[in-house]
Amino acid sequence: MNYRRNHQIGDYKIQTMTCRWFREQKKLEVYVEPRVQDELLTEASYFNFVQTWRDEKEVLLLHTKVDLVVTLGGDGTVLWAASMFKGPVPPVVPFSLGSLGFMTPFYTEHYKECLDSVLKGPISITLRHRLQCHVIRDAAKNEYETEEPILVLNEVTIDRGISSYLTNLECYCDDSFVTCVQGDGLIISTTSGSTAYSLAAGGSMVHPQVPGILFTPICPHSLSFRPLILPEHVTLRVQVPFNSRGHAWASFDGKDRKQLAAGDALVCNMAPWPVPTACLVDSTNDFLRSIHEGLHWNLRKTQSFDGPRDS
Amino acid sequence: MNYRRNHQIGDYKIQTMTCRWFREQKKLEVYVEPRVQDELLTEASYFNFVQTWRDEKEVLLLHTKVDLVVTLGGDGTVLWAASMFKGPVPPVVPFSLGSLGFMTPFYTEHYKECLDSVLKGPISITLRHRLQCHVIRDAAKNEYETEEPILVLNEVTIDRGISSYLTNLECYCDDSFVTCVQGDGLIISTTSGSTAYSLAAGGSMVHPQVPGILFTPICPHSLSFRPLILPEHVTLRVQVPFNSRGHAWASFDGKDRKQLAAGDALVCNMAPWPVPTACLVDSTNDFLRSIHEGLHWNLRKTQSFDGPRDS
Amino acid sequence: MNYRRNHQIGDYKIQTMTCRWFREQKKLEVYVEPRVQDELLTEASYFNFVQTWRDEKEVLLLHTKVDLVVTLGGDGTVLWAASMFKGPVPPVVPFSLGSLGFMTPFYTEHYKECLDSVLKGPISITLRHRLQCHVIRDAAKNEYETEEPILVLNEVTIDRGISSYLTNLECYCDDSFVTCVQGDGLIISTTSGSTAYSLAAGGSMVHPQVPGILFTPICPHSLSFRPLILPEHVTLRVQVPFNSRGHAWASFDGKDRKQLAAGDALVCNMAPWPVPTACLVDSTNDFLRSIHEGLHWNLRKTQSFDGPRDS
Amino acid sequence: MNYRRNHQIGDYKIQTMTCRWFREQKKLEVYVEPRVQDELLTEASYFNFVQTWRDEKEVLLLHTKVDLVVTLGGDGTVLWAASMFKGPVPPVVPFSLGSLGFMTPFYTEHYKECLDSVLKGPISITLRHRLQCHVIRDAAKNEYETEEPILVLNEVTIDRGISSYLTNLECYCDDSFVTCVQGDGLIISTTSGSTAYSLAAGGSMVHPQVPGILFTPICPHSLSFRPLILPEHVTLRVQVPFNSRGHAWASFDGKDRKQLAAGDALVCNMAPWPVPTACLVDSTNDFLRSIHEGLHWNLRKTQSFDGPRDS
Repeated sequence: MNYRRNHQIGDYKIQTMTCRWFREQKKLEVYVEPRVQDELLTEASYFNFVQTWRDEKEVLLLHTKVDLVVTLGGDGTVLWAASMFKGPVPPVVPFSLGSLGFMTPFYTEHYKECLDSVLKGPISITLRHRLQCHVIRDAAKNEYETEEPILVLNEVTIDRGISSYLTNLECYCDDSFVTCVQGDGLIISTTSGSTAYSLAAGGSMVHPQVPGILFTPICPHSLSFRPLILPEHVTLRVQVPFNSRGHAWASFDGKDRKQLAAGDALVCNMAPWPVPTACLVDSTNDFLRSIHEGLHWNLRKTQSFDGPRDS
Repeated sequence: MNYRRNHQIGDYKIQTMTCRWFREQKKLEVYVEPRVQDELLTEASYFNFVQTWRDEKEVLLLHTKVDLVVTLGGDGTVLWAASMFKGPVPPVVPFSLGSLGFMTPFYTEHYKECLDSVLKGPISITLRHRLQCHVIRDAAKNEYETEEPILVLNEVTIDRGISSYLTNLECYCDDSFVTCVQGDGLIISTTSGSTAYSLAAGGSMVHPQVPGILFTPICPHSLSFRPLILPEHVTLRVQVPFNSRGHAWASFDGKDRKQLAAGDALVCNMAPWPVPTACLVDSTNDFLRSIHEGLHWNLRKTQSFDGPRDS
Repeated sequence: MNYRRNHQIGDYKIQTMTCRWFREQKKLEVYVEPRVQDELLTEASYFNFVQTWRDEKEVLLLHTKVDLVVTLGGDGTVLWAASMFKGPVPPVVPFSLGSLGFMTPFYTEHYKECLDSVLKGPISITLRHRLQCHVIRDAAKNEYETEEPILVLNEVTIDRGISSYLTNLECYCDDSFVTCVQGDGLIISTTSGSTAYSLAAGGSMVHPQVPGILFTPICPHSLSFRPLILPEHVTLRVQVPFNSRGHAWASFDGKDRKQLAAGDALVCNMAPWPVPTACLVDSTNDFLRSIHEGLHWNLRKTQSFDGPRDS
Repeated sequence: MNYRRNHQIGDYKIQTMTCRWFREQKKLEVYVEPRVQDELLTEASYFNFVQTWRDEKEVLLLHTKVDLVVTLGGDGTVLWAASMFKGPVPPVVPFSLGSLGFMTPFYTEHYKECLDSVLKGPISITLRHRLQCHVIRDAAKNEYETEEPILVLNEVTIDRGISSYLTNLECYCDDSFVTCVQGDGLIISTTSGSTAYSLAAGGSMVHPQVPGILFTPICPHSLSFRPLILPEHVTLRVQVPFNSRGHAWASFDGKDRKQLAAGDALVCNMAPWPVPTACLVDSTNDFLRSIHEGLHWNLRKTQSFDGPRDS
């Protein structure tokens, strides 16, 4: 793979340094997001070489121009960067600014060594699957008529918003009835998203390379609603019943809230194009490090026992 | 596939009927477990055609003689039948006697229609992966020296038995340190086993076709020890520390308890030969039915609301 | 105790019957809610004897006129009836219409026998404590200046509403710092409310006669945020930080949403006046029955074992 | 209160110092456990003033001689010290050696100042309730015939030990049927014990001054077995069914395992004599400190957000 071009998202100072480095040391073309291009040009005309995109059409062509994505920020920045690529996604090298994220194993302190070794390759990659979500309006004449599919790297959530009525969502998996979710809502998550909102709602932590879809209720009105994990090949359909008293709200990777009226549905399945993110060590090692450092997973005080089960 | 021979395990009366049916209607050779052969022959010399195995060596050759396994009993019977096949496993048609199990979707009331349609094919199969477990004794000179690997279809458990000291198990995944389990113990489970002991310990329910390994602590002495799900390609090593004050106990599909002394370890990975079990409808439909009927998953009283969030 | 007057809330037909019965058989004065009085008078001038209240001032005097409250509906009706009494609360006899609630053990089929035995006494009572909640506005010059305290019988909730920012709530107990809640929100619940929203968020079920306050996070962004139960004599203060990026929302027994801006706080403690609700058998028996019937608590399929731990 | 005598348990060096200090500075009589008396006398005849007890009869009289108990060790030491007093318990001043326990807020570094201020008073006390447990043998002719009640400060546990059969325990509360526990076992815990084994099994954390009894299943074989908290005035009865296939095991504060055969029962209620333990600040402050430091309760990484719900 020959990475000729490059795309950057994130914090300002480290941004100017990496732009300069890619240009001068690596002779690569550099794309940045529009807002950043403006900032760079305001600072110095030196940055005339930096390119960007100016409309939705150019965004759709980004994957033909970009061979490597560098993100500077937290997991949110990776989510945002991934959302720019509806089709194939170039490898992403995610740098954290400050604390480690679940998808951002690289520190900017060592950006040169790190990017050097990425450009040389080979690198270890985590292939992160995404869900593609269709909102199907009851009002629409045919399915898939009105709205573009939305890709999520973490999760799609359907909740009751500020309605005081519990959600009542009918869920189907490949046309088999799964259950009716009565509660605050439902999270349909990738395994990458298992350490995000699904975790807060009680879901298990799943290694991002396990192929599966997490089905995690939010505050279910039932004692026995244990989270479920389904195979990645299924299609899920979440239906707001026709007699629903309140609206439901869908949100996608924590953003883009859409109202779902009675009769509307959300249909999800795995998207064909995963997001390849670069690993610092390897997928397992990076994952374990992120749950130890980011979540204090199973952190305990070391104990000095003074008796049988001295708790 | 041409099923010429056949193997039965389970309840007596239905057993005689199916033996007779396989012999008379299908002209198949029939194997039953030794105890059952004895019972049948005591009853009538008619059953002289029924074969069995008489020693460990014949057990090892079973897979060369048996093309279809019929189990009559609960999930425990399936676990036991699977344990007879250390290598390739013929398809298993699991009948429940009485209540539905997680792996036993067929009812004996309809055994003729059901077996007829299985013998005709095609049938839908759930491929259930097994874990192969090696106990590595610290006292042994080389790894894998002393003990045969044990195959489990549900889970291997390491616990403290009746010791009043908490376990203190050091866990590694492909040589990356995972965590130290301090508590009552640890369950390493297949996804088939996700509805068994792992569930009781708080693990998620996982569709049996999701390729993964559940890592579920038993009563961990830490608030933050959420269950973990790892990819099926990893090797797990659970080590009893050299300075451990108590012994640990391993058990395999709920049986065969083995003591682990300080320095001993258990090493697990996915076995190459899965257990194919026949589906009534298909893998997803059968799984959803089993968690609804067997676990009352998300069973709720239907509610008549009389106000906002009338709980 | 001499129950001379009586107050009814709920369903129409059973309402006319009980009004008539109280009047004719028991010679009691009957109060109903304004809407119901209108309905009754529309039907027949017979119901001229039925009284009501017409403004906030009359509501405040209700406890001087009402000796017994009869509710016809679910738990929501009991919550609403209780909210009419800011001070002392007369005994409440809660009838369910249809399915059993956690606070409504009586069935209307037997209303005569039931009310007869209540009027005769003695009856077994569950004393249900309420929380009084003050919203303290940062903009207000002195504490308790602007807003009336609100009484809740189940719980007060502070959540992020539809904000995409997690809540960040600083919590204090009698001036000791408890924790900072980062997540979807926080539930402060009575033990009566332990089977309502707190349960959905993962809280324990607490017998309504245990004196305590439940402190249950909603989808906390931390693995180790186990729910907490505090003594009933404490004062809790939940503060929206001055630098909070989003608003928080308080709601009271699932209603009356109020926005909390940065710097605002919610202060709660036990209200001096509990709500006495009549028991069918006794407090423990009624409670256990409600969690069995209403929540299917620990409902299991009866199992036929066919092997060691046949799960 | 005039503390004339004093009793010590624990680590050696700090023990000699505190014995000497009580004797020389405070002119108090000092009792230590037998083993420690032996050690002290071996070291120097100076310690001739130190008294002890030599048989069960003297233990029963301890409460008539001891006005203050000083423990040097972890929570296990407090459990042990409390177990010496079957009736009234003198105030306990619990010093931790090393890390903080849930009941041991004092550090030995400051033993003089600390004990000085305790002896002067007033001190803040946490009254910790204990459960008294009777094992009722089916073989015995009358209830309470054979065995002494056992007092626990944390919990009594009934589990399946190494049996491969699940427990099947029938539970009653004041003669109302509560539930049948099918799983690894059951924990009946005080609120002091809520941070011990009950927590590991998924119970809530309960402030030690909340009057209540925790009823927490261990790995229940049911999705809906949420832990329960009952009032302190109830009597609980846990019965091993007459047709039970395996034995059950009771253990008391993690010790003294007793086998329960089919037909045996365990009966528990609150003991009349609580254990008063001295507080460093006050009951709430000490409790919150212990769950923060001892359990890392709700410990989170501070987050730098870079987007909506950057998880």
